[in-house]
Amino acid sequence: MNKKRIAVDMDEVIADVMPKFVELYEKEFGKRLEREDYWGKKIYQLEGARKIREYLFDKGFFRDLPVIKDSQEVLKELQEHYDIYITTAAMEFRTSFEDKYDWLAEHFPFIHWKNIVFCGDKSIFNTDYMIDDHVFNLKTFAGKGLLFTATHNIHEQGFTRVNNWQEIKAFFEQEREKEKAA
Amino acid sequence: MNKKRIAVDMDEVIADVMPKFVELYEKEFGKRLEREDYWGKKIYQLEGARKIREYLFDKGFFRDLPVIKDSQEVLKELQEHYDIYITTAAMEFRTSFEDKYDWLAEHFPFIHWKNIVFCGDKSIFNTDYMIDDHVFNLKTFAGKGLLFTATHNIHEQGFTRVNNWQEIKAFFEQEREKEKAA
Repeated sequence: MNKKRIAVDMDEVIADVMPKFVELYEKEFGKRLEREDYWGKKIYQLEGARKIREYLFDKGFFRDLPVIKDSQEVLKELQEHYDIYITTAAMEFRTSFEDKYDWLAEHFPFIHWKNIVFCGDKSIFNTDYMIDDHVFNLKTFAGKGLLFTATHNIHEQGFTRVNNWQEIKAFFEQEREKEKAA
Repeated sequence: MNKKRIAVDMDEVIADVMPKFVELYEKEFGKRLEREDYWGKKIYQLEGARKIREYLFDKGFFRDLPVIKDSQEVLKELQEHYDIYITTAAMEFRTSFEDKYDWLAEHFPFIHWKNIVFCGDKSIFNTDYMIDDHVFNLKTFAGKGLLFTATHNIHEQGFTRVNNWQEIKAFFEQEREKEKAA
């Protein structure tokens, strides 16, 4: 039987962009943000901060992001049971392609290039599961979507929410249990 | 109603890699190939020619390829009736990302970045149609696949074959006629 397939987003799911934006904000506005300061939004959605979104277009921005806790171990384990696809909306940022590719090669060497996708609109994927921090990606998705908690989606309702990779691991253990029982 | 969606391959469907391989082969082996010389295969599948496949990894290789005849006009017209996605297996070639992006921006500026996909395995797409020169991409595709004729697929049977972009245009005119009649 074919393995079921999981589409996994990069930014704010396996790659942490927040520390860099906190730094950029501090450099620009002289204030060290706490998570509560940007609760319910992205940092560049704070008043007057739109311009720091422009840093996303800088060569190197995506190259040295920290890996989100437990994502490597859990994805490696999930790979035994599922086909994992990394699906990232890189296409807005021409400068990000090589950085994202190199970052994945460094931190997720067990993901084959055949399973990496740089895209824009994610509505064309037909995987069984999707893990994403953006509601608009889950809304057009026909499979089971998991909303990975990020400050900007904290108020969203009506999605299966996962707060960290241990919860993702537990979710898929349950899914496999249910399948066995069925 | 949502528009139906077409996934369109790049190499040997809208971008012509053959003239460059003919040149590379001539430089390497001193013989100017005719199409009949590589009938049923790719040029780098000719005996002893495997090494010229390595040029695919050169920066710049994909930047200056000729556009395949009528693909611009026909895609622009199809865009009125369909959502067009450019889906290219770029992921094997890290060096190709910016070249492919720039090539598309130059020759297909009417394709939005949201509709461009760099991927590996194409089995995760759920578009209604796929136009591709590789049988292995069409085999895993659940929608209607169109095999775009290339020397390497000339002997393939059992697929809806299109030999050029005028035939693609005619195919989709018929599809819309059938839908109207239904």
